[in-house]
Amino acid sequence: MALLEDFTITNSTDSLTGRFADFIVGGARANAPDGTDRHVLRAFINWLCCTIGGSRDESVSRMLAVIGVVAGAGQATVLGGNRKLDMAHAAFANGFASNVLDFDDMHVPTLIHPTGPVVAAALSVAEAQEDTGRALMDAILTGIEVELHIGRCLFPDHYDRGWHITATAGVVGAAAAACALMRLNREQTARALAMAATQAGGLRAMLPNEGKNLNVGKAAQGGIMAALLARQGLSSAPAIFDEPFGFFSVFEPRADFRELLQDLGRRYLVSEISLKPYPCGVVIHPVIDACINISRRSGFECGAIRSVDIHVHPRTAVLAEKPDPGSLITSRFSLHHAAALALTFGAADFETFERTDVADPGLVALRKRFVIHRSDDMTAAQAKVIVAFDGGEKITEHVTKATGSPENPLSDEHLERKFAQLCGLVMAPAAAEALLAQCQVLHEVRDVGDLVKMAMVSSWKR
Amino acid sequence: MALLEDFTITNSTDSLTGRFADFIVGGARANAPDGTDRHVLRAFINWLCCTIGGSRDESVSRMLAVIGVVAGAGQATVLGGNRKLDMAHAAFANGFASNVLDFDDMHVPTLIHPTGPVVAAALSVAEAQEDTGRALMDAILTGIEVELHIGRCLFPDHYDRGWHITATAGVVGAAAAACALMRLNREQTARALAMAATQAGGLRAMLPNEGKNLNVGKAAQGGIMAALLARQGLSSAPAIFDEPFGFFSVFEPRADFRELLQDLGRRYLVSEISLKPYPCGVVIHPVIDACINISRRSGFECGAIRSVDIHVHPRTAVLAEKPDPGSLITSRFSLHHAAALALTFGAADFETFERTDVADPGLVALRKRFVIHRSDDMTAAQAKVIVAFDGGEKITEHVTKATGSPENPLSDEHLERKFAQLCGLVMAPAAAEALLAQCQVLHEVRDVGDLVKMAMVSSWKR
Repeated sequence: MALLEDFTITNSTDSLTGRFADFIVGGARANAPDGTDRHVLRAFINWLCCTIGGSRDESVSRMLAVIGVVAGAGQATVLGGNRKLDMAHAAFANGFASNVLDFDDMHVPTLIHPTGPVVAAALSVAEAQEDTGRALMDAILTGIEVELHIGRCLFPDHYDRGWHITATAGVVGAAAAACALMRLNREQTARALAMAATQAGGLRAMLPNEGKNLNVGKAAQGGIMAALLARQGLSSAPAIFDEPFGFFSVFEPRADFRELLQDLGRRYLVSEISLKPYPCGVVIHPVIDACINISRRSGFECGAIRSVDIHVHPRTAVLAEKPDPGSLITSRFSLHHAAALALTFGAADFETFERTDVADPGLVALRKRFVIHRSDDMTAAQAKVIVAFDGGEKITEHVTKATGSPENPLSDEHLERKFAQLCGLVMAPAAAEALLAQCQVLHEVRDVGDLVKMAMVSSWKR
Repeated sequence: MALLEDFTITNSTDSLTGRFADFIVGGARANAPDGTDRHVLRAFINWLCCTIGGSRDESVSRMLAVIGVVAGAGQATVLGGNRKLDMAHAAFANGFASNVLDFDDMHVPTLIHPTGPVVAAALSVAEAQEDTGRALMDAILTGIEVELHIGRCLFPDHYDRGWHITATAGVVGAAAAACALMRLNREQTARALAMAATQAGGLRAMLPNEGKNLNVGKAAQGGIMAALLARQGLSSAPAIFDEPFGFFSVFEPRADFRELLQDLGRRYLVSEISLKPYPCGVVIHPVIDACINISRRSGFECGAIRSVDIHVHPRTAVLAEKPDPGSLITSRFSLHHAAALALTFGAADFETFERTDVADPGLVALRKRFVIHRSDDMTAAQAKVIVAFDGGEKITEHVTKATGSPENPLSDEHLERKFAQLCGLVMAPAAAEALLAQCQVLHEVRDVGDLVKMAMVSSWKR
């Protein structure tokens, strides 16, 4: 076992830890291409409405009943209410809530929800420090890039073995964002990354239950704790991404770092994030698109469907082949339920999911007519759906660019509707509109606390 | 992927999760053999003095400067001071401090520090709930048994791949202890175990630095958080030890559960814990015993040593072959430093480690004369040391039962001296003596808070 008591490895030019520390300390935006700000802003807006909308969930109330006891005094706001906690626990609560509706963003090539841990951490730190909107945006970019480049090294083996990659890569991304906002130096940053990495965890067994939100919240909290402890001078491993028994050595010893070393700070992955039009697992989205398209064809009659053949990437089937979901939370991971909604109602948006009984006899009967085919020649962003009717007719739809994907992005108008709808679950419409307007000029906001206050207006619905 | 929305698996008779939940809910003490209480009590006393003694370390001050901001109000005491925090953060702080001196206990067959996460969690919950000493002892037993039986399944592959097993198994043990004290029912307990398991983490890259203490503290905190969230009704995986993408499936898919299923609640592993006479890695202890014995032989002259051949189990060498430690914290994992102390001073106790400069020229010169041999026919509890002198004489010592091991346990008197010495770092001698007397009748204590108050006396040295 190599024993590292100094920063020899971190300082070496081909050290991963050193590369990350340089990227974080040097400012991720330095080399970012034009348009990066827009991607960051859209990801932030999407995260904010998912978090505010998710905050009314019962699981959030249960979580807050516990967190309220173990948290420190008011540094940062728990969105969806007027409560302030210490920054680490505010990040925990907001990270938890952001994932509740499964409507938050997704980086499809790694299956990471990029903003979940990163924005939750960055927003709480920025509010507590009275940072500018510009600093917040740069920290979000920093965190997302670190998180997704790590994710690219880990995926798919790490995910396939059962790690909730949003949490394991996310805690490091959250730490990176916190380090950037706290302006830690290179050595402190390397120490913080190590303390984040040693907190990395999260099992995929949690994915269909409320534990998934716990994983996301913990990642946000852990990232802030790592930065706070490093700033206070706690020692830790100097080169956690390079050491034996370090992050990669333990989580994914076979990881290939060539792309990371080549691309970090050159290829900006924030531009490759999907924003969801449907509140459910992203791998299901191309199927929903296909079914909605089919439902709009002339002559389509839902009651006359005899069978539905659904061709998807094998991982989509592994993740989402759930013919009989037992609850709303499980239905968000059920390809069958989502496709049945889309064929029945021509929609699978937030309202449709919320108002529908998963045990509705019509939906149950329709789901029984589905046959899922695992197709190796498809990507996870693609789907082919063939609906056969009693009369013998068939309709085929092949989707290659799902709505919300980088190739077919959610329009700004669609994102604005989503924001209004989700914030509208708890906020008065005018308040939500004013908040959105301020988000859209985030780079000009002088104190992030002012923006957060707009989400704490007295015009709450509850 | 199996989708478990109910407790089918947990309720099955051969389910691991069900076995654990039954063991915890049913009371671990029900079937414990005579003498178990004594093992629990000695482990508790040893943990308490390590924690109080460790509390004066600078790393604890740095940690507390952060925790003080993010913690809730006073439910439980941070040992070594008069501060009270919420129970989860008090457990974090005490778990952290318990490991600072590397003087805490060790289960050699799994390399777990059993009390670190478990007692830290149990003591804070018991204090907050005003539980009896009897309830505290039973919860400690519950937590340690769960933790060590899990550890036996994981070890050695899990450890060898780089997981800090004290943290990964410890968070589950801590949750078990907290569930027992909170009297959670079977389903709540299974949910809590899942929420503990999904927080499991901790990298061995932290072992020679202050991050190791962070790992232990986080495990204690995570266990309490899991129990609190489960009590509040947060849902999580129902059968985390049996599910695909659950704890064992992710951490150690090759684990063999036959021994666990056979032994849980029958073989009590608390009786197999080592209490350390020397404040350093336990695998070094047989070497220290051998060197101290050699130093007491007639005719021994340290200045005349020509060479020292040290034969140890291969893992001992992997963990502790550090000829040139750069700091006190690293020296606690250096076989060379410990053996040099033992040969030079005839001692490697707490005072000897603390007062010695790791760069002392005499020690450095002596360490250079050591040759480490990896011997497959030795266990980790054994060592053979052969000292050759300039005149050609040789002394050989073969240790098979290291001091402090279950086969050669620390005497009660030795443990009392250790308690007085470590508590004496911060407490007045009479206060430490009174505290020990109360610990020795822990099973009769009516309110654990009263005992903890004795460690908060006004007679602090500082």
